[in-house]
Amino acid sequence: MEKQARTDLGRIVAFTDGVMAVAITLLVLNIEVPDVDGADLGQAMVDLLPSFGAYFLSFALVGRFWIVHHAMFERLRAFDGPLMALNLVFLSAICLIPFSADLFDRYDDEPIAAAVFGGILGVASFVNWYMHIHTLRAGLVKEEHRGATAVFASPVAFGFTALFLISVPLAFVTPILAEAVWISTIVLRYPLRRVSVRKSSS
Amino acid sequence: MEKQARTDLGRIVAFTDGVMAVAITLLVLNIEVPDVDGADLGQAMVDLLPSFGAYFLSFALVGRFWIVHHAMFERLRAFDGPLMALNLVFLSAICLIPFSADLFDRYDDEPIAAAVFGGILGVASFVNWYMHIHTLRAGLVKEEHRGATAVFASPVAFGFTALFLISVPLAFVTPILAEAVWISTIVLRYPLRRVSVRKSSS
Amino acid sequence: MEKQARTDLGRIVAFTDGVMAVAITLLVLNIEVPDVDGADLGQAMVDLLPSFGAYFLSFALVGRFWIVHHAMFERLRAFDGPLMALNLVFLSAICLIPFSADLFDRYDDEPIAAAVFGGILGVASFVNWYMHIHTLRAGLVKEEHRGATAVFASPVAFGFTALFLISVPLAFVTPILAEAVWISTIVLRYPLRRVSVRKSSS
Amino acid sequence: MEKQARTDLGRIVAFTDGVMAVAITLLVLNIEVPDVDGADLGQAMVDLLPSFGAYFLSFALVGRFWIVHHAMFERLRAFDGPLMALNLVFLSAICLIPFSADLFDRYDDEPIAAAVFGGILGVASFVNWYMHIHTLRAGLVKEEHRGATAVFASPVAFGFTALFLISVPLAFVTPILAEAVWISTIVLRYPLRRVSVRKSSS
Repeated sequence: MEKQARTDLGRIVAFTDGVMAVAITLLVLNIEVPDVDGADLGQAMVDLLPSFGAYFLSFALVGRFWIVHHAMFERLRAFDGPLMALNLVFLSAICLIPFSADLFDRYDDEPIAAAVFGGILGVASFVNWYMHIHTLRAGLVKEEHRGATAVFASPVAFGFTALFLISVPLAFVTPILAEAVWISTIVLRYPLRRVSVRKSSS
Repeated sequence: MEKQARTDLGRIVAFTDGVMAVAITLLVLNIEVPDVDGADLGQAMVDLLPSFGAYFLSFALVGRFWIVHHAMFERLRAFDGPLMALNLVFLSAICLIPFSADLFDRYDDEPIAAAVFGGILGVASFVNWYMHIHTLRAGLVKEEHRGATAVFASPVAFGFTALFLISVPLAFVTPILAEAVWISTIVLRYPLRRVSVRKSSS
Repeated sequence: MEKQARTDLGRIVAFTDGVMAVAITLLVLNIEVPDVDGADLGQAMVDLLPSFGAYFLSFALVGRFWIVHHAMFERLRAFDGPLMALNLVFLSAICLIPFSADLFDRYDDEPIAAAVFGGILGVASFVNWYMHIHTLRAGLVKEEHRGATAVFASPVAFGFTALFLISVPLAFVTPILAEAVWISTIVLRYPLRRVSVRKSSS
Repeated sequence: MEKQARTDLGRIVAFTDGVMAVAITLLVLNIEVPDVDGADLGQAMVDLLPSFGAYFLSFALVGRFWIVHHAMFERLRAFDGPLMALNLVFLSAICLIPFSADLFDRYDDEPIAAAVFGGILGVASFVNWYMHIHTLRAGLVKEEHRGATAVFASPVAFGFTALFLISVPLAFVTPILAEAVWISTIVLRYPLRRVSVRKSSS
């Protein structure tokens, strides 16, 4: 069976961390320094508040993806080719988040912008969920951590992907609804983590 | 209790280093290559001097934040969920430094620009200070290093945060005063470090 | 003989991973947020589809280069000066991929744009292939992995370089043909990997 | 004495690698995708050749700085506060290289542009040289590697700094002369390395 040992995991993780670190830092480029008269700077900063909001939201979303990814890889004892391919697909979705956040920020009234953001979050979340399933099936998870990973591979965990995917049609009702759903995923992830830890230690 | 071992700390640190490395390097994008006739390049470079000043100041500030973060994490023996969340909040403030430095550079006469920069530095500094307190309370610090961390969690160490926060109203007196305060934090951090080392080794 | 031990390899790998992580993330900067009326955003997103295509293709190509590089360095037991120099040349070609992908995306009908992209991929692939040969000749490969590295240093593996180089004249027939060739290299690499693993374990 | 052990060195090195990896990758942003009619793309690419030249030259220069830094830190057994400060100053100069390379590329006939590039290379080189001296004096170098580090701390090694500094006035004779000097430093570093290795192993 084509598997490689835990030592090699380090470099996949380092590359993933690098990509996510760059992606999360690029989010700040979406907040553009205003080009106004000095006297109008106060108003210009107020006008920037939605951009700051989009920044912190995307930062929290990428941060959460990173935390979950971090936890998933800590529980692995090996990896295989499909996991590397899945990880690249995951990263290609993560790297689209700065673009989508910028799109959503500039067109905050347009359902399409929110739908694109929701769709990309949905894809990232789906691949992330599927990676948990794959690592379980392919026997890549350390024996003592199979319970914890199983929580993240469960239908309940798929709920996050479902929320992101549901935000796509909801965006066409009103973009604010879609945004509310994304924010909810940040809040909701906490309880899930607690469940996972309980199962892991039991 | 939901704590994870020191080995896992490596990846949080790697991610943090990655984000701070990108943020510190993005600072250079604020120095724009002038678009002038060749004959006017000399004058254009002189006009860029304040941008270079803002670059070196922000570089030093991010560099200092990195050094303190580095030292704090070296003294940990474990981490928990709240620390990861705090660290993300800290990083989201750090990533705003290239934006604020650019803002301050372009509007160097405007109190608001200096106030935004000071406010963001204040938030980063506050979260940093609170992380020290949290790691002590949650028992995440190695026994032999509790003294050193206590120095950074002390009211004296809060002085840095206070300085950054005080620079916000000071910016409305004159932005130069705010800038003077930021520079003082770079100079002042040295003595504190010395105290910390003495306590640590005693 | 001027060789250095395996521990030192870590930093070359970390630097390489950093460069490739930044390069792969910069690819997203090629997808520009449209500047249109809200009502035209739908059409604008459809117009962006080729940019997304170029993004995913380049992401997959850089991803593949990373996977092969990763595997090559895992099999090393030491490095030497020429390998470091070759690695820098390799990275300088990789860093040109965001530029070439952008060029190809904006001038997708122009043979020259496709030829430049193909040429840069060809150079990266050639240096990568030559690095395998060099590590074998200079005795840098761990004894048990010489077979696996030999597969990547073989004339068959040179086929990838040849495909990229052939895509340069093909671009002048039609750029689509060149693109088809690049896509084929992503699909074809899988079987080669399998051969390599078989040889390695036998 | 305020020194910290080798394990801690890892994170300084990781941060440095991150900064240098981002800086070296940002160099590609200086090559702008031309904005011309498709029919004029060939000529536009020819016009870009000097930009490619500046890209490869700066890539080689940052690459060399990285290799020397890498070697210096491999020979350390500890670090201290001044070394961290020096390293930050070094990095702040390295991060200016993408700016200076862009400046030099756009104003290739202007002595000032070449002088700025040469000056920044000179500062980076000087700090690098001084870091070798500091690590020797402060006893941070592993006993068995003191000979190798001494080579890089010698007046001969200062020659590189001198070459960069001399390129500043030479730029006012003609920028091409300054460029020739920079290229020479890439070629000349090889022999020095050889000397260092010989001393190290003797």
